[in-house]
Amino acid sequence: MNKMSEVRKRAIGDVAAGDVNDDHREDAESEEDNKIEVDEVSKTLPQGTNHTPDALASALSGMSDRWRNWIIRGIFTCLMVTGFGIIIYGGPLALMVTTLVVQVKCFEEIINIGYTVYRIHGLPWFRSLSWYFLITSNYFFYGENLMDYFAVVINRTDYLRVLVTYHRFISFCLYIMGFVWFVLSLVKKYYMKQFSLFAWTHVALLIVVTQSYLIIQNIFEGLIWFIVPVSMIVINDIMAYVFGFFFGRTPLIKLSPKKTWEGFVGGGISTVILGLLMSYVICQYRYFVCPIEYSEALGRMTMDCEPSYLFRPQEYTLPTETLQNLSNWLGWKGTITMYPFLLHSLSMSVFSSVIGPFGGFFASGFKRAFKIKDFGDVIPGHGGIMDRFDCQYLMATFVNVYISSFIHTASPQKLLQQSDGILSQVYNLKPEQQLQLFYTLRDALEHRGILNTP
Amino acid sequence: MNKMSEVRKRAIGDVAAGDVNDDHREDAESEEDNKIEVDEVSKTLPQGTNHTPDALASALSGMSDRWRNWIIRGIFTCLMVTGFGIIIYGGPLALMVTTLVVQVKCFEEIINIGYTVYRIHGLPWFRSLSWYFLITSNYFFYGENLMDYFAVVINRTDYLRVLVTYHRFISFCLYIMGFVWFVLSLVKKYYMKQFSLFAWTHVALLIVVTQSYLIIQNIFEGLIWFIVPVSMIVINDIMAYVFGFFFGRTPLIKLSPKKTWEGFVGGGISTVILGLLMSYVICQYRYFVCPIEYSEALGRMTMDCEPSYLFRPQEYTLPTETLQNLSNWLGWKGTITMYPFLLHSLSMSVFSSVIGPFGGFFASGFKRAFKIKDFGDVIPGHGGIMDRFDCQYLMATFVNVYISSFIHTASPQKLLQQSDGILSQVYNLKPEQQLQLFYTLRDALEHRGILNTP
Repeated sequence: MNKMSEVRKRAIGDVAAGDVNDDHREDAESEEDNKIEVDEVSKTLPQGTNHTPDALASALSGMSDRWRNWIIRGIFTCLMVTGFGIIIYGGPLALMVTTLVVQVKCFEEIINIGYTVYRIHGLPWFRSLSWYFLITSNYFFYGENLMDYFAVVINRTDYLRVLVTYHRFISFCLYIMGFVWFVLSLVKKYYMKQFSLFAWTHVALLIVVTQSYLIIQNIFEGLIWFIVPVSMIVINDIMAYVFGFFFGRTPLIKLSPKKTWEGFVGGGISTVILGLLMSYVICQYRYFVCPIEYSEALGRMTMDCEPSYLFRPQEYTLPTETLQNLSNWLGWKGTITMYPFLLHSLSMSVFSSVIGPFGGFFASGFKRAFKIKDFGDVIPGHGGIMDRFDCQYLMATFVNVYISSFIHTASPQKLLQQSDGILSQVYNLKPEQQLQLFYTLRDALEHRGILNTP
Repeated sequence: MNKMSEVRKRAIGDVAAGDVNDDHREDAESEEDNKIEVDEVSKTLPQGTNHTPDALASALSGMSDRWRNWIIRGIFTCLMVTGFGIIIYGGPLALMVTTLVVQVKCFEEIINIGYTVYRIHGLPWFRSLSWYFLITSNYFFYGENLMDYFAVVINRTDYLRVLVTYHRFISFCLYIMGFVWFVLSLVKKYYMKQFSLFAWTHVALLIVVTQSYLIIQNIFEGLIWFIVPVSMIVINDIMAYVFGFFFGRTPLIKLSPKKTWEGFVGGGISTVILGLLMSYVICQYRYFVCPIEYSEALGRMTMDCEPSYLFRPQEYTLPTETLQNLSNWLGWKGTITMYPFLLHSLSMSVFSSVIGPFGGFFASGFKRAFKIKDFGDVIPGHGGIMDRFDCQYLMATFVNVYISSFIHTASPQKLLQQSDGILSQVYNLKPEQQLQLFYTLRDALEHRGILNTP
């Protein structure tokens, strides 16, 4: 609460100093309907990009706005990339905690906007309710994730086993308590605002919580499935900015007037090239390619394995005859040897450079709809956390779906992991029931002529 | 489109005839902020409860409003209950189609309210986009459901197998197309409205599509898991109305001034009693208790099985010594024999009578927030489809969670069904890979000392 009011004061200060974005003024004239609301929002929400640490601000005071912004943005980009490197070094647990922290910050930023848009300062219970729903949905989703991976440990502790067996029921009860609480908190004067904010909260949950859950799932598949896509979005953002800054001429989309075709294309090509290079390097380290598993023997998470075929060089025949003849003529074998992962890396980089930016456009549109410049002011030169992560969420969902469609179906190792998930449920049964289950499985395989019992 | 404008005309007619609900007028005075929007909404949305077939209206013209409403409501309740019976007779497929139709109607009603609230008649693509998202999310959820149950058939047809293997990917691509379409359809003048409606559409999807998916899952568990909860909500609605009509004195909650404590308590007790009676009867028929499975031999869905222990009489020891002594003294055995399902039926009836009504309060609050009397005017005396199904969705989610927490974990039969789901994926592999998989499973069981190979 203290933080919010501090932020508000600072933001009002900015506006008072004449620091209003030109685009927004233009918009305000064209949208008559929402004029009053909109003025209010832009006055009370943090307008972060221009918030600069004092020391830096005075050091750069002689420069033009354009270059000052470029330098500040650059410095903080480097800081963030370094921070990202340190967190990766910290291992999967550090990454999961970071994902959770980022999720909470994004939720806070989105909810603060809702809070300001609907101008409700005395609305009963709203803030507590939003956070309550955040906690219950995280309880549900993180539980679903961790249960699968820590099944062995969990089954050893009795009270944890209860939490696992009734996980959905407990989560549902927690949610229903929030739901009943919401209904009881309804006050005649505020019905419409309360329902709007209820919807706002749920959309925020849908965006940040469900997608964080997918990010955590990706991490468990192996750090590479997290690092490569995240880096691709970062590379795309930076390179599009750089290309746009130096060569940008042709506007790309009305939503974000600063984005140009030159930035879009230059960023896209850089992402594909740098993405492939990066994938080539990191797919050679077990630390990055091995799925994360809980080792009962070591009592901690491990990332050691025989790398799957995705990360071992394979020979591919060139697809067309012309290409084969050409390569024979050049004295090559007509085949190409590479890591299969590079093909998947290509798909991801194409997605991140073609569809990824739409995540950004969507966020821009959202910000313009509510007449705010940024989601927050946490990162100087960048804005809020949500401003940097808008495309990351879209990308993480893509990677998750991609893995389940193209990686899991192809690898028997993965299938086995899934059966293990089922088996951990089987182990909750009495031994004789487990045995019976096994025989039923065996009979099924025999019946299909796959297994021939001696 | 034609339908909507027809509905609008009729609604305006109603208002012109002075047929405005008193409660709403009162609300309009207390909420200054939304006044203009609100007037518009109540003029353009169907106000359905009072829409009565002409023949019926003239036959009942001599009666007081209170009794006329009671009779119309009664007649249409009977018609609906009869319809429900006929659909059950039609079997699981008829029920699934009905669920889909109800879902689409509910979605339409919710979207129409959003359409009217935001007063956007020229908003680019909004209506098409909403329906597009409805189709893609249904494609995803129905696919997820049916894939599991028709795995055997699907794997035989090549192009269906592609649809299954890449189901998530295809659904995601369809969704992303809608997302990009939305971003491209953004028009400066309408930003705020477009985003509000985007959120509105997603909340509607969250309510109707995800929960319909859970309903379909419940149906597959056996018709009883669908019929009993649905009937409980119906019984609770009817009995609360009846008790409230004849004995209602003490107001229950400000949100719905017509609801009384007498109705709440009377409805609750009736639901528990009638729910148990009903469960006792229908848990004796295989048609209702057997899970629905696709029979390869018959080429159709079947509901024949050896009923699980839930539906076979079991002997229970009375819980306390006092009770046991009492029963011995009465010449009984100190045990009680009954269907275990009755205990689950009790849980469900308690939920449907204590928490169920909150679904109704929530819907009432929503309707009051947007100053509408009903969601639609499809059912005379009742309003829209959504007015009848508000609590059904909440109940279906409860039953789904209840089954996964208390029924699946207890029954090895169900666990086997889950392993079968995994196995159907295994059968997509080459035979030698399938075999390898089996041996890994066997070794795991041996390692745990459960299986002793001869």
